Amino acid sequence: MPEDWEQRAADKRARILKNIPAEWRIQSPPAGDSFFDFPEKCGILTPKELEITKSSATDLVPKLAKGELKSVEVTLAFCKRAAIAHQLVNCCHEFFPDMALAQAKEYDDYLERHKKPVGPLHGLPISLKDQLRIKGLENCMAYVSWLGKYDTEESESVLTILLRKAGAVFYCKTSVPQTLMVCETVNNVIGRTLNPRNKNWSCGGSTGGEGAMIGFRGGVWGVGTDIGGSIRVPCAFNFLYGIRLVMVACRTPRWQTVCWARRQLKVLLVQWLTVQRVNLRLFLTSILAEEPWKYDSKVVPMPWRTSEEDVIKAKLQSGGLTLGFFNCDDNILPHPPILRGVDIVVSTLKKAGHTVVPWKPYKHAYAVDMINKIFAADGSTDVYEKINASGEPAIPNIQNLLNPSIPKKDLNDVWNIQLAKWDYQLEYLAKWRELEEQLGKELDAIIAPITPTAAIRHNQFKYYGYATVYNLLDLTSVTVPVTFADKNIDKKKEGYKAMNEMDADIQAEYDPEAYHGAPVAVQIVGRKLSEERTLKIAEEVGRLLGNVVTP
Amino acid sequence: MPEDWEQRAADKRARILKNIPAEWRIQSPPAGDSFFDFPEKCGILTPKELEITKSSATDLVPKLAKGELKSVEVTLAFCKRAAIAHQLVNCCHEFFPDMALAQAKEYDDYLERHKKPVGPLHGLPISLKDQLRIKGLENCMAYVSWLGKYDTEESESVLTILLRKAGAVFYCKTSVPQTLMVCETVNNVIGRTLNPRNKNWSCGGSTGGEGAMIGFRGGVWGVGTDIGGSIRVPCAFNFLYGIRLVMVACRTPRWQTVCWARRQLKVLLVQWLTVQRVNLRLFLTSILAEEPWKYDSKVVPMPWRTSEEDVIKAKLQSGGLTLGFFNCDDNILPHPPILRGVDIVVSTLKKAGHTVVPWKPYKHAYAVDMINKIFAADGSTDVYEKINASGEPAIPNIQNLLNPSIPKKDLNDVWNIQLAKWDYQLEYLAKWRELEEQLGKELDAIIAPITPTAAIRHNQFKYYGYATVYNLLDLTSVTVPVTFADKNIDKKKEGYKAMNEMDADIQAEYDPEAYHGAPVAVQIVGRKLSEERTLKIAEEVGRLLGNVVTP
Repeated sequence: MPEDWEQRAADKRARILKNIPAEWRIQSPPAGDSFFDFPEKCGILTPKELEITKSSATDLVPKLAKGELKSVEVTLAFCKRAAIAHQLVNCCHEFFPDMALAQAKEYDDYLERHKKPVGPLHGLPISLKDQLRIKGLENCMAYVSWLGKYDTEESESVLTILLRKAGAVFYCKTSVPQTLMVCETVNNVIGRTLNPRNKNWSCGGSTGGEGAMIGFRGGVWGVGTDIGGSIRVPCAFNFLYGIRLVMVACRTPRWQTVCWARRQLKVLLVQWLTVQRVNLRLFLTSILAEEPWKYDSKVVPMPWRTSEEDVIKAKLQSGGLTLGFFNCDDNILPHPPILRGVDIVVSTLKKAGHTVVPWKPYKHAYAVDMINKIFAADGSTDVYEKINASGEPAIPNIQNLLNPSIPKKDLNDVWNIQLAKWDYQLEYLAKWRELEEQLGKELDAIIAPITPTAAIRHNQFKYYGYATVYNLLDLTSVTVPVTFADKNIDKKKEGYKAMNEMDADIQAEYDPEAYHGAPVAVQIVGRKLSEERTLKIAEEVGRLLGNVVTP
Repeated sequence: MPEDWEQRAADKRARILKNIPAEWRIQSPPAGDSFFDFPEKCGILTPKELEITKSSATDLVPKLAKGELKSVEVTLAFCKRAAIAHQLVNCCHEFFPDMALAQAKEYDDYLERHKKPVGPLHGLPISLKDQLRIKGLENCMAYVSWLGKYDTEESESVLTILLRKAGAVFYCKTSVPQTLMVCETVNNVIGRTLNPRNKNWSCGGSTGGEGAMIGFRGGVWGVGTDIGGSIRVPCAFNFLYGIRLVMVACRTPRWQTVCWARRQLKVLLVQWLTVQRVNLRLFLTSILAEEPWKYDSKVVPMPWRTSEEDVIKAKLQSGGLTLGFFNCDDNILPHPPILRGVDIVVSTLKKAGHTVVPWKPYKHAYAVDMINKIFAADGSTDVYEKINASGEPAIPNIQNLLNPSIPKKDLNDVWNIQLAKWDYQLEYLAKWRELEEQLGKELDAIIAPITPTAAIRHNQFKYYGYATVYNLLDLTSVTVPVTFADKNIDKKKEGYKAMNEMDADIQAEYDPEAYHGAPVAVQIVGRKLSEERTLKIAEEVGRLLGNVVTP
């Protein structure tokens, strides 16, 4: 392996490309800014393969289990589409179709021999963020210094192991930004990942490679993590559903999942997933069926609770849901397309007979400041150790949050911040109870923006506060795609009086022309460990919006 | 308030005593080492009051709810017995019979007016460790510097609030050791708390005041915390049942519960309770009925699961339980009475048809070393700040663990220890799975010593490793009283070859004469958040031992 970091990165890029067979290579790249429809036109996928890649996990799984579709053909279809995705938007850190097809073949043989599927996800290809570890594969997680680090049976992620037991096929590991602490996906190993809908837009981050890949239908499910919006932002920017699970007492295992600062795992890390349609339920039920709490001490022993889904079902059948909403956190005003997105959701829900009342965001700016302190607590010692080990430079995007001039905190000061966090969580719970007392019924969830912008132009992402506050509060949050920015409706605000400098910068950045067509999403925020209820609510919102099956 | 710390402490002691009415004062203290039978003889309690104080919570609650017993008379009975307890064994930091009787009167009036109880614990007196905060009362938590600190509506513990909503009456707050980090109860405010069965023995710690109080039947329930044995050790030393709940994702609220180092709350703290009989279930179901997760963000939204109890019930009806056991952690050999205690439990269970197999303790010495590092992580900055604020000296017992010469750790080093802890938890889970695979069935729990000794002589407590390892692993653990040390059976080991210096010291300390009659207990260790199952198992063990109703 070369010594020079640029050569090491170039070598890695070449190795990824080498795994794409000649017949999947793009001969003439598409013209224009959008790559979204290219698979239909390029002739690399057969009509049947195109159809497979347009299916959801819930479509594919029963057919795979009955043998109506072979895992090999489904895997091949997604491998081809993923290969196209990588060539166009640069979204893979690892691509391994041979290993995937061999694994798919094993499952096919198993089904033929035993006349039953290996598990609830029998033969389904699943895409993993390059934080999840797979034995035999390189795990660089965007650090040049980690190139050459291969995982073994011992270092494999618990989630990888359980997904494989459930029948999943792995075929790629997708790109992340350097340090993971950015909501755009740029690193010195493979460069920048683009948004398939428009190459001028970001795919989001840190799970940006998944966002691009699943948005492009190079897969049905992506698996990643969200400690500050890292699942929800890429979902928002790629018109996808996604869930941010609760972290402190989590429901899916996260052991051996590499973190931005592995040592800070204890502070903030959550296992998650992005999906193309609202079939997150199948993912969660399949993982929970494997009893992950017997493998990872962080996982709460809580099987899937249909009784909790039933609570929401019953409300849908009589009386309707009770939801709070806000469109501004009193710190940064979202762009017009996002404000309209919240309006659409609120009016759609009201029209369907649900109770939707304003939610007063409680001290969100304070919370964002606190989470910034937590993220930078160790003076970024850990991440710069990994960056500096190869000689690669820090990407410009991390300069604000992880500036090495921010000193490492004293242990007692960090404990004080953690206590302040707990305080804040309790105050937020009290506000939730107060509103419930006023309404005389349960507040089922809160509808809120995820980002102040629709899918953003490169190097413009400035504010993750809408997402991050719910990491700090450790609440369940599901991204629901709503609409697309429209230059004819979403006019620029004239004479806007900004609340602060960043607010002014962000509002100034809005350009109706540049954002035209960019995905707009909201998040549905539920109580802690309320996955069953919150997903059910998100499903209903998606159904009412007509977005349950995305284009 | 006087400036001098000794005067401030003397003033506090006088204020506690002042709250004991003249007619509850002991005129002639009992002769001999044991105070255990004194309430029967001293004439302060009426026969009916004696009977009330011999009842369990599950006896009293239905009678209180129906009005067959008035809360005022039950409260009065326990106040009297608690007053005697304090005079003999020095176990209260706060004693407030007037406030308690007023609260009891309110509940009685409520029942008369509304013809229904206020909640599942209607009118029941409950004793609280001086970590739990009650509005209007002083909360010194054994620090002289905190004398004069009174709690308000805002600073009241969530658990206090919810217990009151459930109908509990508070009448005392019990003693704890300075810093809470000792398994004996000594501080500079009130001095030492004694074991009611023998004044030469420790009542255990840190919830030692509760141990003594409930052991003496000055209450039916004590509420406290256990981050390193602090519930289980006092239970063991006072022949009580007690549970150490899971901490990271806990089931009862702990907000506003004062911690040894409040700032380290985030690292290790668990709400818990000690009880006189196996009626912990009533406590937990009553608290969970108040939906504590709506008040405290650390609480898992998990109501009481009778389905989990039913799993154990079903096993008891066919096939029996499957239990592991060990009597030595390969670091410190317990004294003969404890070894015999484990033998009794194992043989009793086997005789009843249960499967009991050896459990190999996994790296317990390593775990104890790790938890020592966690406890001392901040160089004891936090606790010495509180100690030094008044000029009081540190008690000798904390010198080993919280020696100020142990330096404060770097933040990244602490994160590394936390990761090592997670590693260890997963390795332990893997061992649990391995044994299950060997046996071909679930391992329901592990039977283990809690301390290497029966109720210990003062200033002799050296090793909390049997208890602490399960804090580090964050497993559910229930203390079950087994028997009493017997000088005629439990002979001193001759020519014992020690595993290390501490092992030699502890074994040398055994004196059959001095320990004669001291309570012996084991702990039943279940999986994380397995309160329903583990309590059910503990109940069965207690039933088989004939110890479900203690003398």
